[in-house]
Amino acid sequence: MLPQISSLDDFRAQLGAAPAADASATQGAEARNGQLTKPPGALGRLEDLAIWYAGWRGSDRPAITAPQVIVFAGNHGVTAQGVSAFPAEVTAQMVLNFEHGGAAINQLAEFAGARMDVHALDLDRPTQDFTKAPAMSEAELLSALQAGWEAVDPTADLLVVGEMGIGNTTAAAALSCALFGGAAAGWTGRGTGVDDAGLANKSRVVAEGVALHGPQIKDGLDALACLGGREIAAMAGAIAAARMLRIPVILDGYICCSAAACLLKTHEGALDHAVAGHKGAEAAHVMLLDKLGKEPLLTLGLRLGEGSGAALAIQILKGAIACHSGMATFAEAGVTDG
Amino acid sequence: MLPQISSLDDFRAQLGAAPAADASATQGAEARNGQLTKPPGALGRLEDLAIWYAGWRGSDRPAITAPQVIVFAGNHGVTAQGVSAFPAEVTAQMVLNFEHGGAAINQLAEFAGARMDVHALDLDRPTQDFTKAPAMSEAELLSALQAGWEAVDPTADLLVVGEMGIGNTTAAAALSCALFGGAAAGWTGRGTGVDDAGLANKSRVVAEGVALHGPQIKDGLDALACLGGREIAAMAGAIAAARMLRIPVILDGYICCSAAACLLKTHEGALDHAVAGHKGAEAAHVMLLDKLGKEPLLTLGLRLGEGSGAALAIQILKGAIACHSGMATFAEAGVTDG
Repeated sequence: MLPQISSLDDFRAQLGAAPAADASATQGAEARNGQLTKPPGALGRLEDLAIWYAGWRGSDRPAITAPQVIVFAGNHGVTAQGVSAFPAEVTAQMVLNFEHGGAAINQLAEFAGARMDVHALDLDRPTQDFTKAPAMSEAELLSALQAGWEAVDPTADLLVVGEMGIGNTTAAAALSCALFGGAAAGWTGRGTGVDDAGLANKSRVVAEGVALHGPQIKDGLDALACLGGREIAAMAGAIAAARMLRIPVILDGYICCSAAACLLKTHEGALDHAVAGHKGAEAAHVMLLDKLGKEPLLTLGLRLGEGSGAALAIQILKGAIACHSGMATFAEAGVTDG
Repeated sequence: MLPQISSLDDFRAQLGAAPAADASATQGAEARNGQLTKPPGALGRLEDLAIWYAGWRGSDRPAITAPQVIVFAGNHGVTAQGVSAFPAEVTAQMVLNFEHGGAAINQLAEFAGARMDVHALDLDRPTQDFTKAPAMSEAELLSALQAGWEAVDPTADLLVVGEMGIGNTTAAAALSCALFGGAAAGWTGRGTGVDDAGLANKSRVVAEGVALHGPQIKDGLDALACLGGREIAAMAGAIAAARMLRIPVILDGYICCSAAACLLKTHEGALDHAVAGHKGAEAAHVMLLDKLGKEPLLTLGLRLGEGSGAALAIQILKGAIACHSGMATFAEAGVTDG
């Protein structure tokens, strides 16, 4: 079990002291990969994935048997600025849909053989409108980080975190803009489908939020408090807990990656245990993946959130591990090694 | 059950009369897709895949329960020209590895829940060296097409065909060059890993084969006879049989796509039931996918063959179908439709 996090500074300290991957398992997996019945490198990125996973799990021939998908939901005061095509009550309606098994993420989690948990975070208490005030107080941020931190099953061997929160692509854009600079419009996309006027309004809102809070933002946690949301902070807390537990993470779309970016801007090695599941349809997601230094596994034009792209990418990682751990070596199969 | 194919002209005629997708199932699936609890288009390409699959299976809410993977193996006389980094006996060794469950495709087929069949085609009787003579006689080509045609399980609901054949990237390059024109070097890659001198030699061999046989090639079957291989012809036969049976196909890498190209150049609609599983590491594969008009589902740098990339892509199609057939509608879930 992980120790609890008692303060934001405690969170920063724990993240900074997180363990590395197991070098001996990594080396063992590299050696095994070189002996499997295929030309060198012929499985492309599947080979790198298997070796990376082996290192984090501390086994040169690992298996994936207990993936966990956690969906966090939160409401955003910034929806008062008219940034979404959907009304804020859809957040709570979709939480019920998750609980009843009707959403895309339910199907994809089940297909991946994953345990799925849903955490609705104070839906009746939206964050503050960040164009007027910080989205969350320090205490509210700590509470949301703790919710994510404690939601991770220590016995899981793979983690996907997803989200639901009407208005949260606006928060993701503001976080990205505050953390990495550049024009607000470049970080702002159509989300679930706003029109041209809606897009211009969303850019204005992002620019106003970043202008108001930018000077107070020294690291990723400051950004989360000023511009984030409870579900985004909880995702960050869960990804950080997985880092402590050496549970590999597959990142989802723009919002998940904005949560990850807050960790990266708090501690440089915070995302070493994570790969990018997919390249979403939102152009800003591609920019953000580049800032994270992550090459996406899938490019299928998804823009749903919920953890859907990452949950689908579990299949790619499972395929990589199936090959790595199941294939015969040249010696075992009696095949001539070219 | 399908009727047998009695001659190459009978094959051409059957392919030309193959049934189309079910328009009513396609429309039903489109309507269902529009009611699912997600913003319109948010599942990106998964939505198109599900609708395409629904049409070919004749059900607006289909399931994938019986995928089939077939691996065909053949030997190539053109290996006498020194085109491969591996000796020809590796073909038979790898067939044993397939039969014993040790190859990458075994792991990926099992992971996909697919039945896997292996057909070794006259391994002790390589095709002719196509720089000297046609690779196969008409009778040999017919026999290989029949082997593929008859290997398809009529109760399968998804098909992947893979191959093993030392020297067969050279055959695939020659087929592509003969069918689509352009420089031999543009269609020639490193296969399992030849060096610069080997690559130059391979280009020479491709150019010589195309120069010798080009004038006799009127359609895809002519090309198969002159430049193909038994396993490539069998893949074409299996893809054609699936077209007759309305079994959707996921195409694999360069060699599989060269077999598919021979069908496309025999009958224009021959590949309507097929999607491209992945973009391989061989640059010529990207060119060939473009000629086939197919956008690959995965880009992971695979260059193994065996059906491996397509078998992995089964997971993407299964994910698409899981969402399409399993999700709740807005009305069922009580979610406000934006």
